[in-house]
Amino acid sequence: MTSQSASLELASERWTDPECPVARALDLVGDRWSLLIVRDAMDGVRTFTDLQRSLGVARNILSDRLRRLVAHGILAREIAPSGKRQEYVLTEAGHDLFTTVLALRQWGERHAFAPGESHSVLLDDTAAVVPELQPASHGGQSLTDRNTRVQKVETRP
Amino acid sequence: MTSQSASLELASERWTDPECPVARALDLVGDRWSLLIVRDAMDGVRTFTDLQRSLGVARNILSDRLRRLVAHGILAREIAPSGKRQEYVLTEAGHDLFTTVLALRQWGERHAFAPGESHSVLLDDTAAVVPELQPASHGGQSLTDRNTRVQKVETRP
Repeated sequence: MTSQSASLELASERWTDPECPVARALDLVGDRWSLLIVRDAMDGVRTFTDLQRSLGVARNILSDRLRRLVAHGILAREIAPSGKRQEYVLTEAGHDLFTTVLALRQWGERHAFAPGESHSVLLDDTAAVVPELQPASHGGQSLTDRNTRVQKVETRP
Repeated sequence: MTSQSASLELASERWTDPECPVARALDLVGDRWSLLIVRDAMDGVRTFTDLQRSLGVARNILSDRLRRLVAHGILAREIAPSGKRQEYVLTEAGHDLFTTVLALRQWGERHAFAPGESHSVLLDDTAAVVPELQPASHGGQSLTDRNTRVQKVETRP
């Protein structure tokens, strides 16, 4: 159902660069607040009030980003077990942003902190720090932007 | 030299959430145009004119994002071999965004295209499609937001 509602929305999206998956991903979630909302949802923050408290973002911006994330099939609205409050939960497409959020976290750890400056860490369920993502070929070769290339969609004759 | 100039800038940055590496990364590059500029730089686009043509973005927005990316130590300005044109090249911190751009690409491929819709692909130097990033523990367990948790910085007494 998630992917169906996402597809409905996708059909009406005006893409910045329709054939590039990076650009489409950024059209959908490439906004600081959207990705911080997804980060908080991964940490279990579920209500407008708690998101607003966590992010310190203006209510109208938070409303707008939540509406967009729901429309894009990344968050779903649910009624809390109490039957009163509305909550926001990640869809499967939302949970699948884990790798992206992890990549951002690890880049931030490497480049956005001075030596010795403390930051939060991501732990697995044995309390070990999550290892760094290592892009690699099927043969195990380390991949970077220097040894990969984008093959564009061929224009049909 | 890159990290030195980055640190200088970092000291004056006002962070959205200072102890969270995800948030710091997004403060630095969490903007659709910034990440699309980085994507294009990874593909070898080096001049203002070519970036403008590739992105179709307004010149003032492109100027602003380039200035920020240089200030943040992600791009560096260089004079072209001809000695005339100014070019923009990725610093090591910029190249290191490869994993983030790859994660965005792969999420986009999974969720932002309808079945059968064509998109560009990323190939390694044997022309094989780059495998999907698989977050895993040191022991090889697949990691998701459901079996990991953020440990915040402890407040000092």
